Amino acid sequence: MRQMFIGVDLGGTNIKIGLLDDDLHVQDRLKVTTESETNSQVVMTNLVNGIKKIIAQTGTSTTQVRAIGIGVPGQMDIKSGVSIFSPNFFNWDNVPVAEIVQNAFHIPTAIDNDVRVNLYGEWQFGAGAGKDDVLMVTLGTGLGAAMIADGRMLYGKSNSAAELGHLNMYRHGRPCACGSSGCLGRYVSARGIVKTVREHLAAHETSVMTDWVNDNEDNLTAAMVSTAYDQHDQVAREVMLETGELLGYGLSSAINLFNPERVIIGGGVAQAGDRLLQPARAVVAGHALKVAREVCDIVPAKLGPWAGMVGAAVYANQTVIGG
Amino acid sequence: MRQMFIGVDLGGTNIKIGLLDDDLHVQDRLKVTTESETNSQVVMTNLVNGIKKIIAQTGTSTTQVRAIGIGVPGQMDIKSGVSIFSPNFFNWDNVPVAEIVQNAFHIPTAIDNDVRVNLYGEWQFGAGAGKDDVLMVTLGTGLGAAMIADGRMLYGKSNSAAELGHLNMYRHGRPCACGSSGCLGRYVSARGIVKTVREHLAAHETSVMTDWVNDNEDNLTAAMVSTAYDQHDQVAREVMLETGELLGYGLSSAINLFNPERVIIGGGVAQAGDRLLQPARAVVAGHALKVAREVCDIVPAKLGPWAGMVGAAVYANQTVIGG
Repeated sequence: MRQMFIGVDLGGTNIKIGLLDDDLHVQDRLKVTTESETNSQVVMTNLVNGIKKIIAQTGTSTTQVRAIGIGVPGQMDIKSGVSIFSPNFFNWDNVPVAEIVQNAFHIPTAIDNDVRVNLYGEWQFGAGAGKDDVLMVTLGTGLGAAMIADGRMLYGKSNSAAELGHLNMYRHGRPCACGSSGCLGRYVSARGIVKTVREHLAAHETSVMTDWVNDNEDNLTAAMVSTAYDQHDQVAREVMLETGELLGYGLSSAINLFNPERVIIGGGVAQAGDRLLQPARAVVAGHALKVAREVCDIVPAKLGPWAGMVGAAVYANQTVIGG
Repeated sequence: MRQMFIGVDLGGTNIKIGLLDDDLHVQDRLKVTTESETNSQVVMTNLVNGIKKIIAQTGTSTTQVRAIGIGVPGQMDIKSGVSIFSPNFFNWDNVPVAEIVQNAFHIPTAIDNDVRVNLYGEWQFGAGAGKDDVLMVTLGTGLGAAMIADGRMLYGKSNSAAELGHLNMYRHGRPCACGSSGCLGRYVSARGIVKTVREHLAAHETSVMTDWVNDNEDNLTAAMVSTAYDQHDQVAREVMLETGELLGYGLSSAINLFNPERVIIGGGVAQAGDRLLQPARAVVAGHALKVAREVCDIVPAKLGPWAGMVGAAVYANQTVIGG
């Protein structure tokens, strides 16, 4: 009887669940709605039912499953498996995610944060394969990051290492929910890009995007900036250049501190591709230390939206089994 | 016959050489002049003769010495033991330091950079003892740093990790020899502090320091700023506050990225003590992530000027012997 692993990516919209064999290849996968706007009981029931479903539909015995790994966004206590707080989840407070799942299936269960499980996935099968020093940057609503240093995931004393989103770029910049201001993630992220567009519009610059949202700036999205960029919209061009360059300065600092051989850029905003990465790479070429930048490239993520699910299984294998 | 280690701190002014027992306690130490203003042959002869002297004066047999570790400033290839370039050493170009010493004594020899061997020393016997996540920042002529992450020294892909001195603080700041500008070390270091004082004087602020150097600003030193500070000199107060705060912002970023449990501040400029560290700690308290700053303190180095010598022996033990 072949041993299996279950990987779970608990997102704000969907829960992605995969059954992986002991080579960590995906045997089956499914997606269920998270209902994060309800409460923790509903979400955890959805999660447990999803795992039940994939076990049932593949005819797997729970005794075959060696471990379950779950990627969770937000702040957590990895050791106890408790999700302390997650910004996009309502009525969610100190949820013992690992314990609930472990009690339901009697399978060892571990949680880690969503960016780290993404990197575990990319490291095993994607853009970080075979590399010992890999920085992953996820550009979504905010900016997340994780670092494989000298062949091991970097956790730090309180499991909060690699918080590149809170690199201080300006002494008196945009205020951040962390209590500081001028944090990189307040500029280089979907929310940051939209804010920068609004600043340009407030300065009476004109953009095709104004028409697209019927003069209601609340409807601006980061994706629109790519589309407008391709139509040679001046505001879009300026915003993408500013954002890409600031990303480049942030990456230069991160490259100087972590000395990675590869930087992987993932997340929705990364779909801007070279519109964003070209100015970022140009800044890195001019500002990161030569000895560090010469051994490092900057590439897009490979695994796409299923990276976290795969990585959660990789993490489960490593953490629970020590594989 | 007890096994011994030799630790060497190759500084620009002096070479410190220690003979340590297998508990890494110092049995004997000596200091010889480096003569870094001459050339690599003279310096390496001084180094080899210093080792010969300590072996002779302690009646040690070279067969007792298991390994020699040498801390070297500047850029190097650790694996081959070659010092590529060192800014304060004249006629110094791709010097095979490890090979020269190994050939002279037939004892395994390894080199590492000066800040890392300092941290090895503080980690073993000083302010970092018993801790798994320690950032060391050395404030000398420039700003150097090294990081113990999850119980291991962080090296990175090309052994240049933890270059905190090149954290980008301003997009268009003071130019740096690295090719970038606005690097933290251009402000928070002896040279940086003197430059800041000169900027204040250029803005027609008056300071007691002007008298001390007989109106010749080339004679300004960072140490003077502490003395003037204690005499309530306004320029000194402002410069120390600005420098300490910028150090605090840099440390906030480093704490967010490395999540250490302790930051050790060493080097000559660290003698400014709380004049510099008080504003730095205040900024960290307000700007580093709560989850990270709450587990981290900022303390002065403990071992003083012999830390590098001790650490070089610790490094030799670990690297050559695997101890």
